[in-house]
Amino acid sequence: MYNFRTDLADERRDLYRKANNLEEIDGIETEEEQISEKVKVTRVKITNEQGEQAIGKVKGSYITIDIKKINLLTEEEKEQAANTLANELKTLIGEKIQFKEDILVVGLGNEEVTPDALGPNVIKDVEVTRHIINYLPQYIDENARPVSAIAPGVLGTTGIETLEIIKGVVEHIKPKLLIVIDALASRSMERISSTIQISNTGIIPGAGVGNTRKEITQNTLGIPVIAIGIPTVVETAVVVNDALALFIDKLQQEAKSNDYLNHLKEEDNYEQIKEALLPKDFNFIVTPKEIDELILNMSSVVARGINMAL
Amino acid sequence: MYNFRTDLADERRDLYRKANNLEEIDGIETEEEQISEKVKVTRVKITNEQGEQAIGKVKGSYITIDIKKINLLTEEEKEQAANTLANELKTLIGEKIQFKEDILVVGLGNEEVTPDALGPNVIKDVEVTRHIINYLPQYIDENARPVSAIAPGVLGTTGIETLEIIKGVVEHIKPKLLIVIDALASRSMERISSTIQISNTGIIPGAGVGNTRKEITQNTLGIPVIAIGIPTVVETAVVVNDALALFIDKLQQEAKSNDYLNHLKEEDNYEQIKEALLPKDFNFIVTPKEIDELILNMSSVVARGINMAL
Amino acid sequence: MYNFRTDLADERRDLYRKANNLEEIDGIETEEEQISEKVKVTRVKITNEQGEQAIGKVKGSYITIDIKKINLLTEEEKEQAANTLANELKTLIGEKIQFKEDILVVGLGNEEVTPDALGPNVIKDVEVTRHIINYLPQYIDENARPVSAIAPGVLGTTGIETLEIIKGVVEHIKPKLLIVIDALASRSMERISSTIQISNTGIIPGAGVGNTRKEITQNTLGIPVIAIGIPTVVETAVVVNDALALFIDKLQQEAKSNDYLNHLKEEDNYEQIKEALLPKDFNFIVTPKEIDELILNMSSVVARGINMAL
Amino acid sequence: MYNFRTDLADERRDLYRKANNLEEIDGIETEEEQISEKVKVTRVKITNEQGEQAIGKVKGSYITIDIKKINLLTEEEKEQAANTLANELKTLIGEKIQFKEDILVVGLGNEEVTPDALGPNVIKDVEVTRHIINYLPQYIDENARPVSAIAPGVLGTTGIETLEIIKGVVEHIKPKLLIVIDALASRSMERISSTIQISNTGIIPGAGVGNTRKEITQNTLGIPVIAIGIPTVVETAVVVNDALALFIDKLQQEAKSNDYLNHLKEEDNYEQIKEALLPKDFNFIVTPKEIDELILNMSSVVARGINMAL
Repeated sequence: MYNFRTDLADERRDLYRKANNLEEIDGIETEEEQISEKVKVTRVKITNEQGEQAIGKVKGSYITIDIKKINLLTEEEKEQAANTLANELKTLIGEKIQFKEDILVVGLGNEEVTPDALGPNVIKDVEVTRHIINYLPQYIDENARPVSAIAPGVLGTTGIETLEIIKGVVEHIKPKLLIVIDALASRSMERISSTIQISNTGIIPGAGVGNTRKEITQNTLGIPVIAIGIPTVVETAVVVNDALALFIDKLQQEAKSNDYLNHLKEEDNYEQIKEALLPKDFNFIVTPKEIDELILNMSSVVARGINMAL
Repeated sequence: MYNFRTDLADERRDLYRKANNLEEIDGIETEEEQISEKVKVTRVKITNEQGEQAIGKVKGSYITIDIKKINLLTEEEKEQAANTLANELKTLIGEKIQFKEDILVVGLGNEEVTPDALGPNVIKDVEVTRHIINYLPQYIDENARPVSAIAPGVLGTTGIETLEIIKGVVEHIKPKLLIVIDALASRSMERISSTIQISNTGIIPGAGVGNTRKEITQNTLGIPVIAIGIPTVVETAVVVNDALALFIDKLQQEAKSNDYLNHLKEEDNYEQIKEALLPKDFNFIVTPKEIDELILNMSSVVARGINMAL
Repeated sequence: MYNFRTDLADERRDLYRKANNLEEIDGIETEEEQISEKVKVTRVKITNEQGEQAIGKVKGSYITIDIKKINLLTEEEKEQAANTLANELKTLIGEKIQFKEDILVVGLGNEEVTPDALGPNVIKDVEVTRHIINYLPQYIDENARPVSAIAPGVLGTTGIETLEIIKGVVEHIKPKLLIVIDALASRSMERISSTIQISNTGIIPGAGVGNTRKEITQNTLGIPVIAIGIPTVVETAVVVNDALALFIDKLQQEAKSNDYLNHLKEEDNYEQIKEALLPKDFNFIVTPKEIDELILNMSSVVARGINMAL
Repeated sequence: MYNFRTDLADERRDLYRKANNLEEIDGIETEEEQISEKVKVTRVKITNEQGEQAIGKVKGSYITIDIKKINLLTEEEKEQAANTLANELKTLIGEKIQFKEDILVVGLGNEEVTPDALGPNVIKDVEVTRHIINYLPQYIDENARPVSAIAPGVLGTTGIETLEIIKGVVEHIKPKLLIVIDALASRSMERISSTIQISNTGIIPGAGVGNTRKEITQNTLGIPVIAIGIPTVVETAVVVNDALALFIDKLQQEAKSNDYLNHLKEEDNYEQIKEALLPKDFNFIVTPKEIDELILNMSSVVARGINMAL
């Protein structure tokens, strides 16, 4: 399979169409809605196996909310973005469980690492009600839905596979649905902390070498899982690879025909670039200098959206 | 039972002896060791039911490490304090499980509230090895013990009773022993973030009205639980109550005999003080202005001590 | 002079009236306004030397804004509180300088110590415009007032008397007015991070032994200084002293007459309590457990109020 | 002049030698010292105008300390790195001022932005003595040097040009020497938060379009300025540009001769890449995912080095 290097269904569809010169992909339906000048929703639905094969994602709904200039939004624009998230979320939740059934919200990531802190940050602002309904029911509306929230940390700091922690909690408190907030990979720097992907398929990590992350889905947990994913970084080698592709295009335009370049372009230079360019000890990422502020703004939009929906 | 308003076995024993004019309490053995000018260890052992009754703590070992002027310790003195903790911990662990058996470290508390952040702070610095032993055994000493660590948050922010989260994780990763780090109540302002109590009995919250915290012990979890507790605040009403007791002593010395004052002293004025003096909406505590720094210093000592012991 | 142990003109006036059984104090005018259920404004004006003598504050306006349950305010209520601050501030500024004249905002305090971080926190959210007006005037409304903002730190971490830093900056950028945000002492636990005092007299630290803080006023800086002060802690000895006063009252009611107690009450037991009760190495304070959150909420209200006013 | 896009004298010398096929550059002396397996010192001295012209830096000493794998250093290795910094610093200070003369340490940067927080972080750990020498001389060694420290913030958050704040403070407290800690640009991802450049020339920002930063040197302040600079980010366009250069090299090796490619290589593609590849609203940087931890480690090494030297 083509290595998309993005978790966004939206971007994968575009890459596949471009690579195969297609207008439409069988098994994939798309719908766009411009909510306002700054907020756009794209709904990608994978309806059959051909669609699954094409872009390497399982059947289900993948809704992308793009927010322009999130760092400069006014309070009302933030409210609107949160509202858009709330509406999409309500629709997906309504398809799976009843009104008033328990929901557990899980924020993945390491809060000590700025671009990875989005999940735990959101959890801090999710309004939990389960304990009030259990212990102090007189203080809460009788129609309130029980909501609980955890930030399970990451394997590197807990020593425990995240799925195991979630499983343990799910078995004990028995929610009817899980909402998982996670960081995604994207190809586009413009989308860093400015795009939200909501899907009703849960989280299925790419099948990479040595990848020990496990899927967080109805298969592994027994309850429906809605994933809210936000791109927070782009890998440096992806950026350079994309730059080279642009550059080779330019060379080809000048040189008319050039077998060697054609050949080069077919290759995927990602691994070579990674080896040639990047020091081994660290994982280099491209990030806007304003990342700390971007993450705080996005955390606040996502937490508000979740609170409105629940 | 007398309301001790302290979780330290050490302080309870002293209060009981003073109130009853006793030199020794049946069923309680004590041993002191001055490790250095700044570090002192007191080992209190409750050996029978009479001891249990006297100070309201279950049978077991309660070891108190007092560290003087923790904010001014040199690197070597911190190392020494951590070392003292490591030695006591190793002894207690060695009585319960074998060399190389799994340990899970749990840091209780809310990291967003300064005096409550000690547990989560320690977790950040505990060296976890379980995932390395599982996934990358070639990178670690073959005698390393599997250690994992979680900070489960608090009921108010997760909506989930802490014991339920711990139970879920324990059932899934099946450690052989639990170490729990918790904040304690103390009567003495000098002990705030300067004293460590280690006990092999786990955590048994006081049986107060409306107290929904559950015990974290071998009874509830099925594996031995070692508790590391640190006093981080003193309640304002406790301080005022103690001040009044001193004051009444002084009045009595002057007035020679005074039935009314004697009567007053027998009463416990805590609830009245609380009502008369303290605004209802908040929980007022006495804390040193340097609490942020004290908590950081203590977190570092405890994390180092745990790392040495494991 | 009576030792008021509060910086709030409001509280001093009440203490003075009570101690002297007065209804009115010559040279002090007071006006109250209930803005809403949760927000109340009290304006104390000291008009002559007798007023100055009575409560130990220099002539000028002292406006107190009390906000009830600041941690539970809705967005609109916060907006209203900020608006109230903005209005009072605009009046005081309008009496001193012209529309469009430069203002420098200074946030005193140590941001590493929770209750002392209010000033620096506010500075982070003040919208500065001076550099835009100087370097990119095309991007800003031509009627915008040049605003700049600094957090000069505290003597203990900079080694420099705060006044010296402010003087240096004032001489270089030549603002026409200074707004200084500072933490205050109060007698009342209810007012911690819930009350704002605005005054047009600047900051004049109490004349205590060994007090090396210097005044920040028109005298020392040559431009008008508006002080925004917020009580963030209460000293433990003050709380105990107040408790003892209540207690002695109660004893007297029972005992009818009691010369010894009368005598005791005339004394100020503060220093004795401090000595008897408090460990020497730390500065003990009473604080609500929710102080971290309270400080964040108050910082946001004050920053918004300043931004609206400027 | 060639656009080096690095502030490291070390890297500029290498780029100049490579571009001009030189072994030595007239007016530039170099000396290397391997302190230990992980710590290397390179001393570059610019001795005349030809050297200045060649690499675009003024006459003076530029000492680079490279620390390998700073995130994995043991306590002793950190001590050694700090010690190396202390020794170089002591030499440079000793050439300018007397024993016991006042020093002011200034940490540039915005502490709210992770890669820019290094300067303010170091200031938090610098041991200041000036106020103790002034107010409590009995508590300090009589040979102690008066040290003070400030973090003046950045233009975007204060509205004030940093140089103006420093000037104001320097005029008031009259130190004899300034140490300024700053973030640098580098070409190499390996050097991010792993290299320290110390120079006795102060800070002279590149003469870019619209660059409003002013130099911080003896010229502008009247006292010697020692600059400690640490690379904390690499610009994305620099990385891609370097990748393209490598790529063109490879194409040329294959194609033997190729006028078009030669021509391309002579050009600097930086501006084109920036335009083609990077979204306009943000300033994209390449950074290791571990940047938060790297910055903390480097801050601690630099603060210790400064404390030892002073």
